[in-house]
This record gives sequence, C-alpha cells and structure tokens, in this order.
Amino acid sequence: MRTLSAVITSSTSFGHCFFHRLTLRHSHKTLTSPLAPCFRRHFTPTMAAPEDSLRKALADKQSEVENQGNQVRSLKAGKAAKSEIDAAIEALNALKLQKASIEKDLQATLSSADGSVNREAFRQAVSNTLERRLFYIKSFNIYGGVAGLYDYGPPGCAVKSNVLAFWRQHFVLEENMLEVDCPCVTPEVVLKASGHVEKFTDLMVKDEQTGTCYRADHLLKDFCNDKLQKDLNITAERAKELKHVLAMLDDFSAEELGAKIKEYGIVSPDTKNPLSDPYPFNLMFQTSIGPSGLIPGYLRPETAQGIFVNFKDLYYYNGNKLPFAAAQIGQAFRNEISPRQGLLRVREFTLAEIEHFVDPEDKSHPKFSEVAELEFLMFPRELQMSGESAKAIRLDEAVAKGIVNNETLGYFIGRVYLFLTRLGVDKKRLRFRQHLANEMAHYAADCWDAEIESSYGWIECVGIADRSAYDLRAHSEKSGEALVAHEKFPEPREVEVLVISPVKKEIGLAFKGSQKNVVEALESMKEKEAFALKADLESKGEVDFYVCTLGKNVSIKKNMVKISKEKKKEHQRVFTPSVIEPSFGIGRIIYCLFEHSYYTRASKAGNEQLNVFAFPSIVAPIKCTVFPLVQNQKYEDIAKDISKSLTVAGISHKIDITGTSIGKRYARTDELGVPFAITVDTTSSVTIRERDSKDQIRVDVKEAASVVKEVTEGLRSWADVWATFPHHSSASADE
Amino acid sequence: MRTLSAVITSSTSFGHCFFHRLTLRHSHKTLTSPLAPCFRRHFTPTMAAPEDSLRKALADKQSEVENQGNQVRSLKAGKAAKSEIDAAIEALNALKLQKASIEKDLQATLSSADGSVNREAFRQAVSNTLERRLFYIKSFNIYGGVAGLYDYGPPGCAVKSNVLAFWRQHFVLEENMLEVDCPCVTPEVVLKASGHVEKFTDLMVKDEQTGTCYRADHLLKDFCNDKLQKDLNITAERAKELKHVLAMLDDFSAEELGAKIKEYGIVSPDTKNPLSDPYPFNLMFQTSIGPSGLIPGYLRPETAQGIFVNFKDLYYYNGNKLPFAAAQIGQAFRNEISPRQGLLRVREFTLAEIEHFVDPEDKSHPKFSEVAELEFLMFPRELQMSGESAKAIRLDEAVAKGIVNNETLGYFIGRVYLFLTRLGVDKKRLRFRQHLANEMAHYAADCWDAEIESSYGWIECVGIADRSAYDLRAHSEKSGEALVAHEKFPEPREVEVLVISPVKKEIGLAFKGSQKNVVEALESMKEKEAFALKADLESKGEVDFYVCTLGKNVSIKKNMVKISKEKKKEHQRVFTPSVIEPSFGIGRIIYCLFEHSYYTRASKAGNEQLNVFAFPSIVAPIKCTVFPLVQNQKYEDIAKDISKSLTVAGISHKIDITGTSIGKRYARTDELGVPFAITVDTTSSVTIRERDSKDQIRVDVKEAASVVKEVTEGLRSWADVWATFPHHSSASADE
Repeated sequence: MRTLSAVITSSTSFGHCFFHRLTLRHSHKTLTSPLAPCFRRHFTPTMAAPEDSLRKALADKQSEVENQGNQVRSLKAGKAAKSEIDAAIEALNALKLQKASIEKDLQATLSSADGSVNREAFRQAVSNTLERRLFYIKSFNIYGGVAGLYDYGPPGCAVKSNVLAFWRQHFVLEENMLEVDCPCVTPEVVLKASGHVEKFTDLMVKDEQTGTCYRADHLLKDFCNDKLQKDLNITAERAKELKHVLAMLDDFSAEELGAKIKEYGIVSPDTKNPLSDPYPFNLMFQTSIGPSGLIPGYLRPETAQGIFVNFKDLYYYNGNKLPFAAAQIGQAFRNEISPRQGLLRVREFTLAEIEHFVDPEDKSHPKFSEVAELEFLMFPRELQMSGESAKAIRLDEAVAKGIVNNETLGYFIGRVYLFLTRLGVDKKRLRFRQHLANEMAHYAADCWDAEIESSYGWIECVGIADRSAYDLRAHSEKSGEALVAHEKFPEPREVEVLVISPVKKEIGLAFKGSQKNVVEALESMKEKEAFALKADLESKGEVDFYVCTLGKNVSIKKNMVKISKEKKKEHQRVFTPSVIEPSFGIGRIIYCLFEHSYYTRASKAGNEQLNVFAFPSIVAPIKCTVFPLVQNQKYEDIAKDISKSLTVAGISHKIDITGTSIGKRYARTDELGVPFAITVDTTSSVTIRERDSKDQIRVDVKEAASVVKEVTEGLRSWADVWATFPHHSSASADE
Repeated sequence: MRTLSAVITSSTSFGHCFFHRLTLRHSHKTLTSPLAPCFRRHFTPTMAAPEDSLRKALADKQSEVENQGNQVRSLKAGKAAKSEIDAAIEALNALKLQKASIEKDLQATLSSADGSVNREAFRQAVSNTLERRLFYIKSFNIYGGVAGLYDYGPPGCAVKSNVLAFWRQHFVLEENMLEVDCPCVTPEVVLKASGHVEKFTDLMVKDEQTGTCYRADHLLKDFCNDKLQKDLNITAERAKELKHVLAMLDDFSAEELGAKIKEYGIVSPDTKNPLSDPYPFNLMFQTSIGPSGLIPGYLRPETAQGIFVNFKDLYYYNGNKLPFAAAQIGQAFRNEISPRQGLLRVREFTLAEIEHFVDPEDKSHPKFSEVAELEFLMFPRELQMSGESAKAIRLDEAVAKGIVNNETLGYFIGRVYLFLTRLGVDKKRLRFRQHLANEMAHYAADCWDAEIESSYGWIECVGIADRSAYDLRAHSEKSGEALVAHEKFPEPREVEVLVISPVKKEIGLAFKGSQKNVVEALESMKEKEAFALKADLESKGEVDFYVCTLGKNVSIKKNMVKISKEKKKEHQRVFTPSVIEPSFGIGRIIYCLFEHSYYTRASKAGNEQLNVFAFPSIVAPIKCTVFPLVQNQKYEDIAKDISKSLTVAGISHKIDITGTSIGKRYARTDELGVPFAITVDTTSSVTIRERDSKDQIRVDVKEAASVVKEVTEGLRSWADVWATFPHHSSASADE
C-alpha cells in the first residue's frame, strides 16, 4: 500500500551523527586523543557482485567493439571483398548491441542498488504534503530563509509536542529520572573543559575566488557517488577504489582529504574555481555574555554538559545514591558549514538526553528482565566487519553473549526500541548498529545507534553510549570540584596500603638542597617500583634512583627509606561514576516517522491519489474531527456539544462546519493523520470513522466523546470497539 | 498562616517589562517614534502624608534645637545666672528628646511603607528552601556561575513543564490556536524590520577606570531610594523631588539621565570612580550564521517575530479566515547589563506568546460571554492618575464602559485571570494594570499588564496588548510580501472613489521636462485637497500648486486636470489585521507562584518551623508519594504495586522505602509541595493524607491509585473524598 513498496536496502552513509558529542567529528582524529571519533559509516568490504561483473563485461565488450572496429577499418583499407566487409560490419553492430545491453543492465543494477530515483520521488511526495499542510516551513521565508533553519507549523508542532510528552512519560516518569532545564547560552570555560572549543570542528574548503565554503568530505563524497552512479566506463578496480574512499571518508585527516581532492581534481561545484586546502571550522555559534564583551560564550552544541556540571547537586538530591539518571530536553545548536538534507541536518534542533550515572563496578539493571525478551534487528560490529546484514537478536542473548557490553546499556537499548516502535517507527526499518572499535572514543565501553531507514538511507536517530567516567573527570579536573560518588561500607574494610617513609634526616645529610626533590620522588613510587627498590636495597644496600625533577640519578642507601605494606581500615570507596547516555535527535525521529507513516491510496472515483499519514494516536497532531454531515443547525449544535465534551476530556480535535463534501473533509484530515472522525448525521447517534480502515461504527451522541477518548488513549483498541458497536456503511462517507 | 502576613501595598517600580517588545525600553523615547515606550512605573502623585509632615516636623525641631543651643551658648557667654543656664539646658535636652522621638517615628514610617526588612526575610526563607530542594540552581555553578543564568532542577523543571502543559491546554487546545515552533537563531534582517536592531537598548554607564558596566537608571534609582530610606535629614521638598525622579525614571533621555547622575554626584558603586555619560547598549546576543561570517544574526529577544513572518501561511492554513490566533512557547534571550533580582531578571527565559489576528473593524469575541461576569482587581489609568488603588471591576462592565478597549482584549484579560488563579496565584495579590497613555506606543490601542505582587513588589508577568497593525506592516514593508487579509463581499459593493485625471497634453505643453513631477503631485492629492483645488479652479480658473519634488509652486489651469468622484464595484476589502498579544513570562509566573504557595508551620514538637509549598495538583512537581509505614517486605510489595498503578494512570509520584520516621517523610515532601501521600500501614487498606489540612482517609489498597488520580486531576475534590471515606487519625502521621 505504501508508495515506497521496495524496502530500501542501501546503507548509504549519512554524514556525522547528530548527537554524539565530540566523538562525532571525524576531522581531528588522533589515536591518542580522548576525543577520538566514534562514528564511521557502515563499511561493507565485500563488493556488489553483479555490478562488478557487469563493469568487467562492459570493459571486455568495449575491447571487442574496438578490435572489431579495427578489423573493419583494416578490411576497408585492404580493399577486401564487399561481402567480407559487410560481414565484419554486421559483427561489429552485433557487438555494439551487446555492449548497449550490458550498459543497460549496469545502469539498472546501479539505480536499483542505489534506488535514488524512487527514493527521491517518494521523498518529494512526502515533502510536498508536509509543506503544503504546514508540518514545517522554511524559517524566515519572506526574507528568503536561512539554510538549516526550519519552523514547525501547527501540525508539526503538535506532533513534536506529542513526541516530547511521550518521551517524558516513557523515560522521565516511568524511570523516575531527574529532569533539569539549563540555558542554551554557555560560557566558554564549560565547553573548553568538555573539549568542544578545541575539537568540535568539521573540515572546510573555500572557493579560492568567491570565498564560498563547503564541507570537504561532502565534496569528496559527492564526487565518488557521482562517478559510481553515472560513469559506466570506470573499471571495476576504479569503482572499488571509490567505494573504499567512501568507506574511509570519516577517517581521513585534513591532509588526506586535501590530497584526495587534489588527486581527483575536485573544484568548487558552483564556479569550477580551485579550492583551498581543508581546514577545521568550529561548529559552535559564538556570542559574548554581558555588556563588556569579556565573557566569551557559545550556544550549547548539546544539552548534556548542563547535567554533568550539576552532578554533585543531583547526586545529593538523589540521597547520595547510585544509580540515577538525569534528563534534559532542549535546543542545541550547530553552525553547519552547508546544511543539506532538509530536516535531518539543521543548525538548531531539539535534543532529549539522558545521563544515567552508575557504579562502574556494577552495571546491572534491576528492570532488565522487563526488556530481556525483546527481539529486534541488531547489527553488531562482527556482522558489519564480515559484510553481513543486521539480524534479529534477543536482548538477553545479546547481553549474555557480551555483544552488548552490560545490562544497563542493554536495558536502555530495549527502552529505546519500545519508545520508537510505539511512536510508529516501522520495526523492519529500525536497527541498532554497534559502533566499530575504531569509531568509538578510547574511553567508551560500548556504543549503539538506533538507526531508522528513510529515503536518505539509514539515519542515526538515537545514540546509546557507555561513556565511562570521561565527562565527570574532565569537569572535575577543570573546575576543581570533585564530581565523585561514595560507597559507604556497611562495616569498615581492612585494606593493605603501601607505606613509603623516607628518612628525612639521612636524605638531608646526603642531598642537602635537593632533599625535597628526592623525598617527593620516593613518595610518588607505585607499588611495583617501590618493592623492586626495596628488594634491591636489601640485596645491594645502595641503588641508583632517577629523580625526574632533578633530571638525574641519585644514590639511595638502605637507611634512607622504609617501604612496607600496612593494614588500614577504610570506611568508604570514592569513585567517579560511569555514565550511560541515550541521546535522542527529536527532529530526526519525527522526520523518519513522517516517512514511515506516509502512504497514498486511490480516491473513490479512482481519479487521484490521496495522501494519508498513518500516525498512531499518541503522535497524531489532532486526535479527532467533528463534522456535521450537512449544514444544519441541529447537527451543528450536536457537533459543538461533542466538541465541548472532547475539550473537557483533553482530546485535541477540530470541528469543521463548512459545507464541503464529507469525503473531501475526510481526505483533508487523513492528510493530517487524524485517526478518528465523528460525523453527525442524525440527532440521536453519530458515526465514528477510523482513518486507515475507513471503517465506521454507529455510537450514541452521548457516548461519542468517551469512545474516542478510550481509543485515542489506548484504553481500548479499535478492533474491540468495532466488535462492540453496530457498523455503519455509507457511500457518501468515502472520498 | 503565611509568614508574610501583611499584604505588601507598596507599588515600588520593577524595572522594565519582560516581554513587551520594543515598547519596554525607555531609553529611546521620542514622541514621534513608532517605538515609544509603553512602560512607566506607576506614579502616585500624592505624597505620603505622615512621612511628609514628619520630615517637616523634624526640620522644625532641628531649628528649635539649634536656636536653643545658641541660646545656651549666649547665656554662657553672657555669664548668666547658673539657674538660668540650667533651665535653658534642660529645655535644650527636652527638645533633643522630642527630635529623637520624631526621628524614630520617621524611621518607622519609612520602613513600614517600604516593608523591605520583612520582605527580604521572607524572600530569603523562600529562596533557601527553593535552592536547598533544587527547584533552581545557579547555572554552571562549579565554574562560579554566570549572572542572570539559572537552571531548573528536578522539582522546578517539573513545575515548569506542568505550567506549560496547562498553558497549552488552557490556550492552545481550548481556543484552537495554531501553535508554531521557530528557531532562536534569527537573521539580522528580521530584527531590523521589527526595530530591535536599532531600538532594543538600555542606557549604560561605565566605570571610567575599571570599565565595569552599570544600568544608568538603576544607579539613579538606587541613589534616590537610598536617600529616601536612610537619610532622615533631607527636607520634605527634597524627598518630593527624589520621588518625582523615581517616577520619571523611564521617561528620561540619555542626556537627562546623565545630567541627574552628574547633579547628584553619583559614582561607580564598587570603586567610587567617576562614571561615563550614559549610552545605549543593545540587549540582543549577537552571533553569525554560517561559516563565512557574512550573515549576522541574533538570539531572538522574543518569540513573536517568528509568528509575524509566517502570517501569510498561517492565514492560509486557517482557510483565509479571521480571526485566528497563533501561539509559541520558546526560549528568548536578553543580554542584560547587570542582572539582579534572581529569577525575575534573567538573560535567558521561556516565553509563551499568543498573537491573535483580528479584523480591526470588528474586535468582538464570540466567547466573551464566558468571561463577562468575572470580577477582579483592575487598575485603569484613571485610578493610577488620581492616586487611588486598584479596585474590583466586572469584566463586562469594564468593556461596556470603554475602560478596556474592546471585547477581544477583554476576553484575553479574563482568560489570563483564569489561567493564573487556577495555577495558584493569590487573587488578592493579582491585578491588571492599564498602561498610561504615554507608556504605550502610539500605534497601540490599549495595553494591560497582569501584575503579581511578590517580595520584590508588583511584577509584570503577562502583558496583554492591542498592538494594532504595526508588526505586520513593518514586515510587509521590509520583505515586500503583503501580509494582509481579505474580506470577500457576499455581493460586490458599490463604492465612490476619487478619480484625478491630469490632462498630460496640456501639462506637457506648460511644464515640459517637469511634466512627470506635476502629474505625480496631482495624482497623489487626498480627497479633501483635490476637491479644494477643483473648487478653486472653478472659481478662479488658475491656481498656485506646490510640487514637492520640484520644491516650488506651479500654476495649474482649469484644463490641466479633471477631478471627480466615480462609482466603482469592489469585490473585497484588503486590510492589515490588528494583533492582540498576550505574552507570558513563564519564569516570572513560576517565581511568583513559589512565593504565593510558600508558608511555614510549626512541627508537632513545636521546636521547628516546617516549610510547605501549597501547590495545586496541576502545578505540583510530584502528585503523590507512597510510603510503607515501617520497613517490612509485605508493605513494600504493596507500595510497589500501588506505584505501578500510579505509573499506568500517568500520575507522577515517588516511592520512599527508607526507614525514616513517617513524620519526617511527610515533612520532606510537604517542602516539595506534594499534595497527597499514600501510606501503607496494613495489607488491606492504606491511608491517603492531604498536605495542607494533614487530614487522612482510609482507602482500600485497590482503590488508592484511582482515588489519587481523581483528586489530582480535579475530577473530584478533597472535600468530596473526605465526606466519602472513613477518616484516619494517627499520632505518628504528623510531623
């Protein structure tokens, strides 16, 4: 029934991820950086077999055509017999026909693998409907708009507020999370500590004449895709190379990207001018706070930092107990170099983030059993590396086998799955993809993206990462405030501790002014080193010992230091909690929902295709419409009474008393995804129509509002209602 | 019961208004500017009688003391008799005592009028509780914080989200408004058209040595208040002058403010250094959009502009029909020079704005009758001018008498009243104050502020303005897109139109190269001018006519122009709609709600004062707590079952299974404003306690969740529940 009947299987890469912090930027990858990239496109190393062999067949056939052409020419030059020449020409033409046929097959293979034509047509159909019905609007449109900024119009805004309300219910309320609300304007000191000021960049190139800016990786990606899709004459080897470049795109350094751009002769797409070398551009919007201009600030690129800096207060609020989760919904900002892909790559967007703080030594989750039996598409790194597809795995199995690192991470993956599918995301076009080892920051324990398939390919909509203690440590260090948790032991525990006691008198006599350096060097030894020294001193009596603050060895004698292990009572353990972070790109989820909910069906007359959004009730911008069948004061009064009851019940609805035909009114609201319509066609009872089945039941006027309330709030299914009330059929009630 | 028992009656000014657009800035007032100030402190021209007469009595007594002192000295100098000198000294001492007594009275009068001591103590008590329980937190506190930026912690965030949900229900859903969601980042062109780039400023002075910035009007205000409150020796005349300055503060130009600062010798408060002259500082946070830095942008200072620029689409969405309202909830930003007053003056805040578009010729409202009978404190400009207080007026009377300009404005005033009081704002400390004529922009038809009294004085929390067609006209002009509405006539209407037909041939002959200027000048005449010219030409045959583009008179003859009125058929009327704008400062409303809800009561032992927030259920951050009376597996299991039922019912709640005494657990949650507590003290039935009365009923375990759902959702009152279920009394269930 959906117009996009074929399941899109391409896993075309989709730019950097929306919400992973720092980790999402590829351009500053160094192996030792704590901010190493966590995101890399899904790379399938195996090449598409038919494409490969067709490219090879085409190249072979081209040689044959050339050889035969030479043959014809040499026959002509040698004045061969006409019959001989004609036969050779006939053979040449046959070869040319065969070549054309292979070209056609290759073209078909490329476009079916890519599916870009179908996908673009589908996307255009969805977008047209969304724009015409004001789900979204280009911001500041009367002034020409600004790339990457969109408004949600009335139905889009209602969908967004429904998605957020459900998010709050599903996560904050059901999990007793601590929700906070922090400002967007953030002083530089916070974003320096988090690493954003230094590292939150994309690589940019400039048109050397006009100064227009482009994302370097996007230009290279476009070049490769263009070659692969449109140039039938490249060899299979060349195609393989280009695909390899696409797969490696996120791992290229500025120098590597620049070299590729030069090698391929890529120029400015609009002017064909030469391009500058790639250089990093920080994606944060900058501003300054206060009138003096002395406090530099940025618009936050994510909401998470607001939670981290409040850890101490939140931990206290939670009775100094772990685990607990804090959550935040709010605007985030990224000054994209050249935003494309509509609602999926924007400069301002709503994030909903959870930071779940947990003891690194105990990542079990008390409610894991509630999601353990869920089974859905998972794409562990092993499957990605071996070129296989995502497959259905049970969550408890994934945790038990260590595919998912720990129970808490698994629990959130399960909860995210429930959240997305209850919103209406198609289960078959949702997968959880694990980050490859080199995608993750070195401190991360594990990371999974909920990816939803859309006409743009697989889109990362939720990132679920175990970020270990990185963020709290960074802020502890920079602020000087210890962001730690305490585990009080029920009884003091006896622990063995290393005790190093330098004998200052002896050291003073031996080293005079350098006494302090030697004492500090001795005291800072680790256990292994200390006991090695002790053993050496016992066997040799005197040992060379390197003092780094002096930059030289000194000679340590046995009487200068006592090294031992002593038993001590400890009352608590002090540690930095780990954080598990599910981070939701709300706009992306909503856009994918639009695509998954959209379908068309023929009008009753069969002369046009009507648009429908099959939103579930919790998402639908309006839950119900109320229509008097014909213009008539009595019907209108009843419609208004029902409207009042719906208002009291808190059901968002719309009353339409225009004289438009009932079929047209249904079609109009199907296009907004309104699930139910109440039509007043008598003074005693009304009909209730369900959007997708177009089935109608007949209900007493007084019951209408409460029946709609029950079905929209999920207290009762349509099937149940359908089985209870008399059915109604009417020719007029169709489009 | 409230600790702030005395109603604060002072109408101390409270800085500029939070959400009126441009109109709120006083510093750029010119009478001809379309952006004239709309806000001015409430000025009571009559002086406080007791203060006045006490100041005069004090000055008189001081003279008497001085005279008597001179008398004593001259007696001593003249070596008068000891008895005579002693009597004079005794009289002097008596006078000094009398003076001290007057000083004491004056001091008492000043501090009772001001009430600042009580108010500050109350505010401190509320703030301590709010901060300790994490209702709000200074943002980025571990880095020292940033003035004017606050986070909402868990209970504050829940209160905010409840207030916004109720706002959406009360306005957007019940009034079928079109809600939109636009970005915070806004390109300069939009804010130039709206006037913010040029006019959205405050006057600032700088410490000439250190560069520290201050708001010029704040320094002058502090100086005047300080003198009035602490200097007992100023004369009644001087006091009157200072009060006049306070009243005029918002009307001062930069020059006038600078002159006063010089006259009073005001210096930098921290360093005592001299200050610069006042100059305007634009309050918008600036940034730039895109990588080239070529698109200047700002963080929006209000959400309204996003609605105005979308007018055309929204009008179309509404079926090209008026009236309709659009609404938006979102962050707004103002880079305050030196934010003070905690949550009331911040640099980033949530606004909820409504733009109701209406035909300027018909401002009736179909639902006005629903609010017509409401009666509440109104403060029309006449009462303000005559120095009277706000008084209770019925809304229909206010509209009928023209106190409120029109029905639609009246309707929104009524709806705002219902909104605020249902949230829990105290009716006695809420008033609607009309703007004085010179507070309003010249284009505004009428403007009322919902002011809530807090420890800071009367705070503007909602502005309700009839802004006429100003905003749509400004954007039409700057964007070139006609933001207009059409009224199609049922039948074409015959209208008389002025027709001016210059006879180009004659004019060409007479004026040659200037022909075009003369023709245009003739064509642009208004009706009155044209018919005056026609009459003159008919009587005199030739008339002097000024052509402004030529800068001189020309002589027009009768044969050069035909002027007539002709009948024409018109099919529609094209006009710019008026906009009525209710604009809500959500943070201010919440802060006032905190103050109005807060009270203390003695603990049962009587040894401490316990804090309570008397939030109504719709506002309360958590609706219910569940407590097993003692630690016991059976009770705990029941508590968990009830918790599950509450979750299913969507009731936010908290379960507390710690062994803390039940009294302490009640006290803890009273301090968070939790209205109900379920205590599990048997396995068959539980108690439900109401926060303010501390009354308890006994309810079957199975019924507990649904009873709490009914009372928290307002389906049933506590009184009703109290009348239905058996009462429970327990000594342990008190604090």
